[in-house]
Order: sequence, then C-alpha cells, then structure tokens
Amino acid sequence: MKKIKVAVLGCTGLVGRQFVRLLEDHPFFKIAGLTASARSAGKQKIAGLPIRETTVADVMQSGARVVFSALPAGVAAGLESALRGQGMLVFSNASSHRMDPRVPLLIPEINPEHLALVKSQQLEFPGFIVTNPNCVVAGLALALGPLMPFRPVSATVTTFQAVSGGGRRGVASWDILGNVIPFIADEEEKIVRETGKILGAWSGAGIRHSGLKIYPACSRVPVREGHLQSVCLEFRQAVEAEALAESFSAFNPEAQRLALPTAPQRPLLLRLEEDRPQPALDVMAGEPERARGMAVSVGRLRVQGRRCSFFLLVNNTVRGAAGGSVLNAELAFRKNLLPGGGR
Amino acid sequence: MKKIKVAVLGCTGLVGRQFVRLLEDHPFFKIAGLTASARSAGKQKIAGLPIRETTVADVMQSGARVVFSALPAGVAAGLESALRGQGMLVFSNASSHRMDPRVPLLIPEINPEHLALVKSQQLEFPGFIVTNPNCVVAGLALALGPLMPFRPVSATVTTFQAVSGGGRRGVASWDILGNVIPFIADEEEKIVRETGKILGAWSGAGIRHSGLKIYPACSRVPVREGHLQSVCLEFRQAVEAEALAESFSAFNPEAQRLALPTAPQRPLLLRLEEDRPQPALDVMAGEPERARGMAVSVGRLRVQGRRCSFFLLVNNTVRGAAGGSVLNAELAFRKNLLPGGGR
Amino acid sequence: MKKIKVAVLGCTGLVGRQFVRLLEDHPFFKIAGLTASARSAGKQKIAGLPIRETTVADVMQSGARVVFSALPAGVAAGLESALRGQGMLVFSNASSHRMDPRVPLLIPEINPEHLALVKSQQLEFPGFIVTNPNCVVAGLALALGPLMPFRPVSATVTTFQAVSGGGRRGVASWDILGNVIPFIADEEEKIVRETGKILGAWSGAGIRHSGLKIYPACSRVPVREGHLQSVCLEFRQAVEAEALAESFSAFNPEAQRLALPTAPQRPLLLRLEEDRPQPALDVMAGEPERARGMAVSVGRLRVQGRRCSFFLLVNNTVRGAAGGSVLNAELAFRKNLLPGGGR
Amino acid sequence: MKKIKVAVLGCTGLVGRQFVRLLEDHPFFKIAGLTASARSAGKQKIAGLPIRETTVADVMQSGARVVFSALPAGVAAGLESALRGQGMLVFSNASSHRMDPRVPLLIPEINPEHLALVKSQQLEFPGFIVTNPNCVVAGLALALGPLMPFRPVSATVTTFQAVSGGGRRGVASWDILGNVIPFIADEEEKIVRETGKILGAWSGAGIRHSGLKIYPACSRVPVREGHLQSVCLEFRQAVEAEALAESFSAFNPEAQRLALPTAPQRPLLLRLEEDRPQPALDVMAGEPERARGMAVSVGRLRVQGRRCSFFLLVNNTVRGAAGGSVLNAELAFRKNLLPGGGR
Repeated sequence: MKKIKVAVLGCTGLVGRQFVRLLEDHPFFKIAGLTASARSAGKQKIAGLPIRETTVADVMQSGARVVFSALPAGVAAGLESALRGQGMLVFSNASSHRMDPRVPLLIPEINPEHLALVKSQQLEFPGFIVTNPNCVVAGLALALGPLMPFRPVSATVTTFQAVSGGGRRGVASWDILGNVIPFIADEEEKIVRETGKILGAWSGAGIRHSGLKIYPACSRVPVREGHLQSVCLEFRQAVEAEALAESFSAFNPEAQRLALPTAPQRPLLLRLEEDRPQPALDVMAGEPERARGMAVSVGRLRVQGRRCSFFLLVNNTVRGAAGGSVLNAELAFRKNLLPGGGR
Repeated sequence: MKKIKVAVLGCTGLVGRQFVRLLEDHPFFKIAGLTASARSAGKQKIAGLPIRETTVADVMQSGARVVFSALPAGVAAGLESALRGQGMLVFSNASSHRMDPRVPLLIPEINPEHLALVKSQQLEFPGFIVTNPNCVVAGLALALGPLMPFRPVSATVTTFQAVSGGGRRGVASWDILGNVIPFIADEEEKIVRETGKILGAWSGAGIRHSGLKIYPACSRVPVREGHLQSVCLEFRQAVEAEALAESFSAFNPEAQRLALPTAPQRPLLLRLEEDRPQPALDVMAGEPERARGMAVSVGRLRVQGRRCSFFLLVNNTVRGAAGGSVLNAELAFRKNLLPGGGR
Repeated sequence: MKKIKVAVLGCTGLVGRQFVRLLEDHPFFKIAGLTASARSAGKQKIAGLPIRETTVADVMQSGARVVFSALPAGVAAGLESALRGQGMLVFSNASSHRMDPRVPLLIPEINPEHLALVKSQQLEFPGFIVTNPNCVVAGLALALGPLMPFRPVSATVTTFQAVSGGGRRGVASWDILGNVIPFIADEEEKIVRETGKILGAWSGAGIRHSGLKIYPACSRVPVREGHLQSVCLEFRQAVEAEALAESFSAFNPEAQRLALPTAPQRPLLLRLEEDRPQPALDVMAGEPERARGMAVSVGRLRVQGRRCSFFLLVNNTVRGAAGGSVLNAELAFRKNLLPGGGR
Repeated sequence: MKKIKVAVLGCTGLVGRQFVRLLEDHPFFKIAGLTASARSAGKQKIAGLPIRETTVADVMQSGARVVFSALPAGVAAGLESALRGQGMLVFSNASSHRMDPRVPLLIPEINPEHLALVKSQQLEFPGFIVTNPNCVVAGLALALGPLMPFRPVSATVTTFQAVSGGGRRGVASWDILGNVIPFIADEEEKIVRETGKILGAWSGAGIRHSGLKIYPACSRVPVREGHLQSVCLEFRQAVEAEALAESFSAFNPEAQRLALPTAPQRPLLLRLEEDRPQPALDVMAGEPERARGMAVSVGRLRVQGRRCSFFLLVNNTVRGAAGGSVLNAELAFRKNLLPGGGR
C-alpha cells in the first residue's frame, strides 16, 4: 500500500514531537513536511526532514494533503481554515475549531458517528477539519462513554494536571515545585463544553449536546506527564459497582474492532489495586507498543447509593493530544474519507 | 498568673515538634515533661528538657496535669485512657478516642458546646480526654461551619494531601516524587465519620451526627506541608455566591471573641485571586504570629444553581494537628475546665 | 535620625521583592520610589507605593539619591551608568558593572577596603556604582575568606543551584522536575572572574586579582531557594581540620563589629552534623531576624593531606542578591559615603 | 543451546525487579528460582514463579547453579559464602564481599582480567563469588578507564544521587522533596576503595590497587533514577580535550567485541550538547533494547591545563546494580566459567 503523505504543523513543541514519534513508521501515513514558527524553522532537522515555517504555501509545497496540527490556538484559527480552503484534510489538536458546529470533536471509541460532519464541511470547501478534545476531556469522555447507559445526571471532577499540559515552557518551576496551583485558565470551561459536545447525540444533521452536568475543578501538580482525575458521578437511581465495572471491562467499541493501528486493545483499563492509577506507573498504559499511552486507566471504583466515584488517568500528550489526533485520522482512513494512497 | 504545667507525649515526631514550638512561651501553659518511644527517649534534650519514655509513671512524675498527645493511634488507645484514669486532662491528636460518644471531637470555632461532654467523662474518672479531628477534617469542617445555615445536603471532596500528613518517614520518596497516589489508608472513612460528629447537634446529653453526606476521594501529592481540598457542595436550593462569601468573611465565632492565644484573628480567609489558595503561598496563613498556620484559606468560590465549589487549604501539622489540640486546651482553660494556675 | 530616601529598580521580580522586604522598616533607609518595566509599571502598589517605569527621569523624581538595582543585565548596563552620571549612588545586583576596574565588587565581610574604589569613580562623576557578586560567589568567596591565610592554590566547586536563581520564570518545570541540569549559561565564567576580583588585593589604586585557581561546575536542581556547593580546596601544604574549623568559627570581621543592621551575628555557621547544610533546613540561617538568610552554612568539613572538602549553602536571593546589596549600602553608610540623613 | 538455570535472591526490591526484567528472555540464562525475605516470600508470583524464602536450602532446591544476589549487605555476607561453599556461582550486587582480595570486583569493559581471581576461590570451594561495584563506581570507573593512559593523579567527584539508590523505602519524601542532602552513609568510603580495586593492576596472583587519589562528596537529590556525577581530574601534565574526547569515543573493549547480550554497543556516550547528560533524558541510554540503561553518558568535557572536568550519568539500578551483575555473568559464560548449558 502506498502511504499517505502528511505534514505536522508545530513540530517542535511537546505535542508536535509526539506527532512525529507516532507517525514515524506508521502503516498508513508518511511524514512529508514539518513546520514550526519562524523562530524555530530552518534551524534543525527532525526525523531527517527540514523544518519549514508554518505558512499555507510551505504546507502546500510539502506535497501532503493530510495535515496534523499542533499549533497554538491563536495561530491555528486562521491557518487551519485557510488550509481547509485549499483542500487540506486537517486533524487538529488546537482548540480553535472544536466548538464549530460543523467540525467533529472526535474520540473514535465514543462518538465515531460525529465524523459524518465532515461531509457538511465539504459542501462548502474541498477540505475539512477534524478536532480532538482537550487533554482532560480525552480521558473523561472516554471513561464516561460506557457509563452513559446508566444515565448519569452530573459529574463532579477534580483534576491533577501535569506540567506538560501547559507546554514546554508553560509552567515555571518556581511556581510549581512542591506546590499545587488550583487554577488553569479556560480549562474548566473547555471541559464543560467539549464533554457536552462529544457525548451529544448525532441527529443526522447536527449534534445535540448532552445534558450531563459537569462541575470541574482544575489544578496543576508537580508531575511531568499524565492527568489524574477524581470523578464523582450522580445517577438517576442507585447503581451497582459490579455493573459499572463490567461496563468498563466489556467496553470494546468499533475503533478496537477495526484494529486501528494506534487504538489500544483495551481503551479502558480497570485497576483493582487499592492505590491506582498513578501517573508514575500508568501513564504509558496501552498495548500494543504503538498504542502506549493511549489506554485510560480507571481505579478505586466505589459506589454509594446513586453516586459512583473513581480516579482516572489519561496521558495528556498522547491520548490527550497527538495520539488522539492520529487515531482520528486512522478512523477517517478506514471510513474512506482520506485520499487512498496519497497523491 | 501561674502557668499550668503540661506534658507533650510523642515529642520527637513532626506533630510532637509542633506541639513543643507552640507551647514554648505560651501564656497559659508551661512544658514540664516530654516523652517519646523507648527508642528516642534519653537521647537528646528538646527545649532544654530531657525526653522520658512514654509511660503513665513517667508522665505522672513530670508534675503536669494537662497532657498533649501526639502518640500513634496504637499506643494512644490504652495510654490515654490510663492517664485519664489517673486524673490527667488529655488533649489528643490521636485518632483512637475521636469517635467515643463521650469524648468531644472539638474545633473551638465550630462546636465549642461539645466540650460539655467532658462532664460525662468526669462522672466516672477524675480526668478527661478531648480530641481534635483528622488533618483534612480540621479544614473541611471549619469551612463547612459557616455554610451550614444554607443547608447543604452533600459535599464531594477531593484532597491533595502533603507528605507530612504521613509522618516523618511515612511516605517513601520513590513513591511520590513526580507522582500522585490516589489513596490514603482509612482516610476517607475518617473524613466521613469525623465531619459528621463535629457538625452534629448537641442535645445536652449527647451528639446527633449531621446528616450531611460526604463523598471523599483522598490523594497524596509531592508537597511537604498543607492539605489542599477541592470541595463541591450541593444545597437544597439555589444559593448566591455573595451570600456564601459573606458567611465566610463575617465568620467570627466565640473562639475569636475570647481571644484565645492560638486562635487566628480570622479563622477563614476568603481569597479573591483566581489561583489561590496554594500550599507554597498560604500554608502559614494566620495572624498574629502565634496563630500562623491556624487560618484556613478558601478560594475560587463558584456557584452554579444548587452547587457551590471552592478550594480550601489547611496546614495539616498546625491547624490539622498540634495547633488544633492547643486551641482546644485554651478553650477548656477559658471555660474553667483546667486547674487554675497548675499545681 | 532622618532616614535616607532610596529607590528600588526592578521591584517586581524575585530579587526586587526581597529588596522591598529588606528595606521596609530599615533603620537607615526609607523607600521613596519603586520602578519596574513598562509592562509592570502602574499596575499595582507595593508597600503602599506606586510602581513607576524604570527611567532616569522617574528615578530622579522619586527624591531618592541612593538606588538599589535588581535590573536585568541588559537594562542595567546603560541605566546604572546614566544614574551615576546624575549623581546617584547605585548599589546594584546586576552583573553589568561588576568587572569594571573602578567598581567595587563587594562583600563587606571579605573585601571592605575595595569600597575605596568609589572615590576614583567620583573623580569623574558625582555618583558611583557598587556591585555585589553573583549568587554562587556570594557564598563561595565568603567561605574562602577566612581560609586564605592557609594559602589555597585551587578550588574545585560543583554547585547545586535553586531555580529562583534563574528568576521567577527562568526555569521551566518541564525541564527540572525530577531532574538535574548540569549547565547554567555564563555561570562558571562569572564564578571564576568574580571570585578572583573579590579575593584580590587592594593596592591603594586598584585591585590585583587573586591567583587562586577555580574549577567550577554548575548545575540546576529542583529546589526553590538556596544554592548548595561542594567545594574541594587544595593547599600548598597539609592542613589540619581543627585549624580550618577554628578559622570559620572565629571569623568576626569588621562588618559584624560595626553591627550593620543586615549583617548576621555570625556570617559563617559551621555545622557539625553529618548531613548538613541542607536547603530545606538552612536556607534562612542568620540572626537577628533582619539578617535571616544572610549567614552562609558550612558543613561536612573533611581534610585529607593538602586537600580540604566541605559543602556550603548560600541563600541566593538574600545573601546572594538583595541582602548582599543592602549590606553593601549599610557599610557605605557607616563609612560616611552616603549623604547623611538624605535630602 | 540449553539455557543455564539461575536464581535471583532478593527479587522483590528495586534491584531484584531489575534482575528479573533483565533475565526474562535472556539468551544464556533462565530463571529457575526466586527468593525474598520471609516477610515477602509466598505472597505473590513474579514472572510466573513462586517466591521462596532466602535460605541455602531453598536456593539449592531451585535447581539453579548460578545465582544473582540483590540481598542487603547484612544478609548477603553469610548467605553468599554458604552458597559458594555449596558450589554455587554467585554474581552479587551486595557490598559484603567486594573488597575480599580473592573476589573479583568486576566491570567487564574495564578489568575483565580480574575475573581470573575466581580460580583462586575454587582452589578452596567448588563455587565462587563475583561482585559488581557500588552504583556510583559503576559509572565513575567506566569513565575513568579509557583516560588511565593519560595518567590522572586525582579525581575530585561530587555526586547527585537518585533516591532509588537508597532502595524502595530508603529515603523519606519529607527529607528530600525540594531539597538536597549532602551525605550518604558509607558511600564516599566505598567510592574510594572500590575504584582503587577496579582500576588496580592484576599481577597474576592478586590485585595492586590503583594509586589514583579520589576525593568524593556525595549527595542525594530529588530524582528517581540516575546518578549524575561532576568529575574533575588532575593529570601529571597538560592534556588536550580532543585527545580525551577521542579516548571516550574510540573506547571499544573486549566486552563489546564479544557482543555480550547486555553490553551496550558503545559503553560511553560522549554528548556534545551544552547541557547534557541529564537524568530525565539520558538515564536509559544504551543500545540495543536489551542494553538500555547500560551506557554511561559523559558531557560538558572541559580542559584547563592539567585539569579536565566533565559530568557523567550512570543508571544506578541497571548499570550500577542488576545490569552490571548480569553483564559479569555473561562475561563469565563467554570465558567458559559457567557450567555449559546448565544441568
């Protein structure tokens, strides 16, 4: 099979590097272009390729038609739209277009049907944009997915977020060494609205957001990678721990059945030890090798009447960023939405 | 005024040392005896005093009639009862007797009326035991106190607990460096039952536990001192942020009006910055100098319908341990429950 | 006594804030002006004073004639010279002028005679500049001072530097959490040349740099405050541990005899425990209260033939920055180099 | 080829687990027995095998004749001797027998000829003991090896040691979070004597220790894995940086030429970046996959007259412990000192 040429935009940051790592030796894709800001462009090679400046012209020149974007939101807003206008198929980790009603906000295991939205985009332009959610939501919505049949009414969520979520230079060591910062700008708002969209129903024309109420409280902790989350769900009626555990364990959605290369064999790992998941031990969960960091670990599942509590851990730069985006592209590929074999 | 002679049991641990610090130059109390385990006894002096072994005889010999206990629970259970039998007035940070229905579990700002329970103890023996709560509860119950008139029905609480809460050698660095451990043995159970007792109603004969439901989730973080807590309260009906904020700010209970030496001028500090409280910045909150670490900081107060969320920070070795115990003894002193002037 | 009006330049950074803290309620000085970059100016008050932009005009307007500078080197180079030209007496923590042969690089306990250099500056302009050394050198040269009579020939120094040495946002948490970075730009060069100047001999006209060879190796560690240093000295001949220890303990130079307000009673504290000094325990060493963080702790003194090894700890933002500068100004005041009583 | 049956003693600790990991799927060896202390024995399986108690009888029963020991020194002293008496071939990470003049203290790349010492042991008993050095020495002696032809006279070494060097529960988080502890019991003594033995000359009958003077200063830092070392060598005469760099790069000793399975293709990696090696980035250096953590990284090579300085990083639980021991056994296997194919 001829591989599809792809470009990685913003390849020098923490997420950009994960994109490159995941796309090297990928069975469907081949990196044809790398871009970065003017400051970083031209200075070094990554994976043997020169780094061009992030402009529409430079991306077009690379010969790629599929683009992975690790751009900062400010840059992504205009540039991704422009690339879409040029016929590019953009898989973006940026937040800019996530809430656009025509743009899928996709987790292949949870809402693959939302991918149909790209058709409505292509009525207007040849290209499309597909987004993956915020790094917290990537784990939270995945864990909520199999529990939705139990009809939760609210989710109270406290996060313990790693510094890599703020980017390579985002969190100063003076602020976080031996400390916890109970605030991350815009994060709680993103969690509420993105989870609502992902868990929303696809009507055939658009998405009706989920009515699940989310009460998030976000914090930064002195951990390098892995966002831990303490979740307390309230259901309409009493639930049984065994039934919830079974839902997690039996969860085997289409993305797994399609054997997408970056899909972990089991997307949710229910841990039975008393003190898991832990960032230091579980952040790279996921098999096979290519899917390391793509499985979400759940533990300390406790039920009390109509309430169920658990901790979950998501790898924020893999499942919560580059890996989520690559998985989205793999689903699109299998759904014949990408040009077969590149051009 | 002649100061009351006191002994500190278990004076070499993290909490024991805080007791000694708080009792040096105390206006009511004077350290007359220090004890530690057989392993530590006799090896060094603290505050100029020799360290005896923790036995009933050694404590009696010190001449103290008031005792502060930083003993581990296993040792405290029998020894504190024996001391009480000998007429000692025991202020204990140990968990052993906290749930005994005749023993006050006391936070002077919240349930001073529970102190009357010592009378029922003294029907049987000349001495009594007064306890202070677990280090998380010391902050949580204090923050819940002024909100009880709004009739909360549940509190969902996720903790970020410092390593000092596990004692000097309790948490191995290999386990916690760059990590979060989402489990602390017995901690969630203590939070539920101790908060229920403290917020319970005093009938004149006993305590009816509060009906407030608590859903705790405890974790250990790589922080040296200060337990941060993410709290989400549900009320019977919609609340107003301003009214809740006003309740925190106006909170000025009897302990403050009595000007107890270790009572902070304001027991609850409501922070309006977007990113507070933080352990590194707020763990020593409290004025005057003697009350440093005794004030609980609250921040990020948010209201959404019937829900109210906030973060709080409590100094776990001061307000949550030694300082809480000393404050209890000061209240007992002012209520004429201690032998005036020592013997 | 009428206090001398002073201005603090660059008052919002880590060092600037230490200046403000040390100068509040100072017996000789009174803050009359505060400046910061255009970005920070006008936004808030510190110590009740507005923050002006750092310009010559704004400094002049404050009415101060003595200036403390926490400016970054790039800004300091021109601005401090301009202020000196306007008659200002500048005490600077910036590196810009440290190696100027007419500018004293001063540690009052070590080379107070170098202060005479200001006279040569004042032949040209009414003002002068006095600098304090790099934060590592502030500790190293202080510890070397009393050992110089033993005639060391070389000092091999490995540093463990806290992140505060890189400024509030200088070291990214992603880089340093759970890590050590064995490099700090320009630091080793500064250590060699600044130590050579400070330990140099004053000829009456200029300074002849010391011939002591320094072999520095600098690293950054995940510590908030306090630069630890491992020092190994080689002497011309065998030395005795007792004699070296006695030199440290007996060290009582003029700055202490003058009772300068910010001078610690004992500038060097020799610790005899097997595992000191430690940043977490010793970074605030120094008495009285006003001199906390001004004492350098030395420990693990070992001698082997012509070699002597020890660890030392210096508070990098106090003794190594703002406190060093304030102490220099106090010495200048006592030497009648400042306008008596201000204007 | 039939694999040799081996036992791992002390398999539950940090080093024991590395032994198990390295011996699973090993081309020469097959784990036949696992032991631990009475407290851990019988509780779980590791690698599918039950864990027996560490006794001579239990080890004999496993059918292994080659033994890897991760025992604590106190237990190892007697037990390893007893096993040797029973004919066992013991490869030990314990310090107990390292300085025994008949026991090789072996780094295959540096002193493979010392392995001949086992013959003198076997004159007395059928078995033998081979030891690998302390975790600091494993890196230091490896880096010194290729420089010995330049005739260094002294090495001044300051270490930054990870907490895993103290074992799973050895360093309390309260002590080390945000701190550096400038002392590790007995460590500096081990560094001096073990380096002297390893770099010593083999006379055909015994080892004459090296005359290189070592001045060590050891510290613990808040890092999980990887011992960084700042080294300053003094030579008899001036050296050239290029010549030293070339010695590192060209270093290709017998262990590499024999292609021992756990030997890294290049045992010393000279890094040219200005800020390497770093524990977070380089602790797993070494290729192929089986040799990850076996390469020692050297960086910041600087020469000044007769002095040469550099930093090195050694993985303390792999190259500095279990991996070093396994590599020793591989060399013994290739030298026909192990029973071919097991029994």
